[in-house]
Amino acid sequence: MALIVQKYGGSSVADATSIKRVAKRIAEAKRGGNDVVVVVSAMGDTTDNLIDLANEVTPMPPSREMDILLTAGERISMALLAMAIESLGVEAKSFTGQQAGVITDTRYGKARIIDVAPGRITSTLAEGAVAIVAGFQGVTQHTNDVTTLGRGGSDTTAVALAAALHADICEIYTDVDGVFTADPRIVPSARRIPRISYDEMMEMAASGAKVLGLRCVEYARRYGVPVHVRSSFSGREGTLVTDEIEGAGTVEEPIISGVAHDRSEAKITVVGVPDVPGKAAKIFEVVAGAEVNIDMIVQNVSVAATGLTDISFTLPATDGQHCIAALTAAQAEIGYDSLQYDDTIGKLSLVGAGMRSHPGVSAKLFAALSAAGINLEMISTSEIRISVVTRADHLDDAVRAAHSAFELDSTEDEAVVYGGTGR
Amino acid sequence: MALIVQKYGGSSVADATSIKRVAKRIAEAKRGGNDVVVVVSAMGDTTDNLIDLANEVTPMPPSREMDILLTAGERISMALLAMAIESLGVEAKSFTGQQAGVITDTRYGKARIIDVAPGRITSTLAEGAVAIVAGFQGVTQHTNDVTTLGRGGSDTTAVALAAALHADICEIYTDVDGVFTADPRIVPSARRIPRISYDEMMEMAASGAKVLGLRCVEYARRYGVPVHVRSSFSGREGTLVTDEIEGAGTVEEPIISGVAHDRSEAKITVVGVPDVPGKAAKIFEVVAGAEVNIDMIVQNVSVAATGLTDISFTLPATDGQHCIAALTAAQAEIGYDSLQYDDTIGKLSLVGAGMRSHPGVSAKLFAALSAAGINLEMISTSEIRISVVTRADHLDDAVRAAHSAFELDSTEDEAVVYGGTGR
Repeated sequence: MALIVQKYGGSSVADATSIKRVAKRIAEAKRGGNDVVVVVSAMGDTTDNLIDLANEVTPMPPSREMDILLTAGERISMALLAMAIESLGVEAKSFTGQQAGVITDTRYGKARIIDVAPGRITSTLAEGAVAIVAGFQGVTQHTNDVTTLGRGGSDTTAVALAAALHADICEIYTDVDGVFTADPRIVPSARRIPRISYDEMMEMAASGAKVLGLRCVEYARRYGVPVHVRSSFSGREGTLVTDEIEGAGTVEEPIISGVAHDRSEAKITVVGVPDVPGKAAKIFEVVAGAEVNIDMIVQNVSVAATGLTDISFTLPATDGQHCIAALTAAQAEIGYDSLQYDDTIGKLSLVGAGMRSHPGVSAKLFAALSAAGINLEMISTSEIRISVVTRADHLDDAVRAAHSAFELDSTEDEAVVYGGTGR
Repeated sequence: MALIVQKYGGSSVADATSIKRVAKRIAEAKRGGNDVVVVVSAMGDTTDNLIDLANEVTPMPPSREMDILLTAGERISMALLAMAIESLGVEAKSFTGQQAGVITDTRYGKARIIDVAPGRITSTLAEGAVAIVAGFQGVTQHTNDVTTLGRGGSDTTAVALAAALHADICEIYTDVDGVFTADPRIVPSARRIPRISYDEMMEMAASGAKVLGLRCVEYARRYGVPVHVRSSFSGREGTLVTDEIEGAGTVEEPIISGVAHDRSEAKITVVGVPDVPGKAAKIFEVVAGAEVNIDMIVQNVSVAATGLTDISFTLPATDGQHCIAALTAAQAEIGYDSLQYDDTIGKLSLVGAGMRSHPGVSAKLFAALSAAGINLEMISTSEIRISVVTRADHLDDAVRAAHSAFELDSTEDEAVVYGGTGR
């Protein structure tokens, strides 16, 4: 007998038929003698439809009201799911984020969980019932206002509840079979990764792998919650995200876990920056002041004759115009010549704890990409990740070349299901 | 400067355009220097769509989950309405029933308000903002579970908030111009009633007038809340429901306020009941045990030769089969011969405080109906109401005859807008 937290994304509860299918799976887990807590996202397109409705009413919806509006989606799915489970003869009760004790800060639309006080969930389990909890939502500590957690918020809710309840496992059900060595839509021979460490999963998530959100993995690592990412459409084992595996990089374990890619970034180059102390700091002060998260930074060697240098950095393309405006306003203060903006870049990241003990990984990657005729524009590394920026239209080729070079291609016929993910 | 509670029904907020129109009206009330609290129903067909969804999932949705599901409707409309008001430059904040302090008992689907603790609403008004409150919903006192108030629940929410806030007026906005002397679809010459007492309005509501719910009027009377029923589609004055009018039934005021009708009842006749003490009591004990609310009762004079009598009563047709089943189960105990069920009846009610001081109202009504060739099957009276049961297909003629006999027909061309009402 275990305490299991299960999370189902929007595509797993898209309509009444899907809800009944998921209910059956939950009832089976309960009948198997387990305590079961279920976190659920809004049905299919509900959230997008609510956003459209808000935009019909006003072009600039206030964030507090937007959060109240969006939480209606999970309220609907959680009640329907509880009904479906009860109709199978298993007791179930649904709870809003507030009722489940999910306390957040007041940053509407991207609130962070401060605390989880799951007293009602614990007593519901003690009564022998399944507890259904609305994902993606919480309540502010002092003002009792409704908040949402932003992208991937339901995954974070599930992991936070699993941590607070000391659950044995947090199962994230989605429409793919787990985490893959690369996106199977680009690399058809990509393999499911049976097991991956928190650190590697964090690097994968930060590098564009969409199956789990970065904040969810951070939370899981901090509280040591084992996460099992798997498909709600099959009975297959998925990917277990857990503490670092003993012997990574030895014969038992591959050096590289996978190849992630990201098309959502853009590059800004600040041209003609005086190469004197404090100028680079000033640029990134301005960028930080605009609340833009930057990723990679490259500073060219300065030209001795002019004493000027260029500084390039990458950022989410959605923040591009905003960041350009902030830098333009500070041109006189920084004293640069001009700005260049480029949103046709792609980022490839090689992730693997094994590269710590295996020198030469970078060299092997660069050689493989070079052999495939791909030019590298920027490079950055962490202890267990190497990322490179290429032209966007070279990215797919780059991913395939890296995947092959590190012998990640599948040798067996593993059935692969891959699509978008829910919240 | 006044404190105004406004309530908008589902048809007044059916889509983004309607919401923007209502927002404008609210902003005007606020800019006129008033404190404004708005109670809102779910948009148009939202509630029906959610009920359909629940029925797709299970034929017998548990009532706790059904209430959670349905409250999603008001959550959507209240957030959208607050956004629309903010976009007009007037600050607005939306609150769930729970956040607004609407405390109820635990009768899911038809909860009753126990208490209203509107601390957050008061402080929102003090900040100069408009408070938008979800109608139809509350929260249980001890377990913090979500409840709904049943039919007409949003009106009740509005009146309860108005009472708790000591509001100057509670405006119920709907898609008709107020309370009419009869349903204008049946009597085209029906007039809007400018002012009506709580008692008369309660009799009208209990007799089938749908514009205000019985519980809402009861609540208004108990706390002395003046209620103004009016259209959200026009600027016209509607009907003011308030304390009894001085001089009712004198030359200044009509004897009769209006003619209500009801097609939703059925009649059960228990045939061949032994006319001995306790048998009638036993019948209505069985009916009450089945939680059926009965309306009119008629007991025939017993036939001396047999010592048997017949007892007829009316009840909501929706409870018919349930009640028949309960009586059938008790046949041996009661000792009756047979049951007759008739759901093709109609009820006409004449309501007016003026009839207290004017004898002969019954006689005049019966004469008018007789002249119109309408047979009366049952009669019941209260101090300010006379109700008669006719064949269902005679009801419209009966309403028209009564309306004319008591000189309620309009002499001017008052534009009449009439349709269904929201929750």
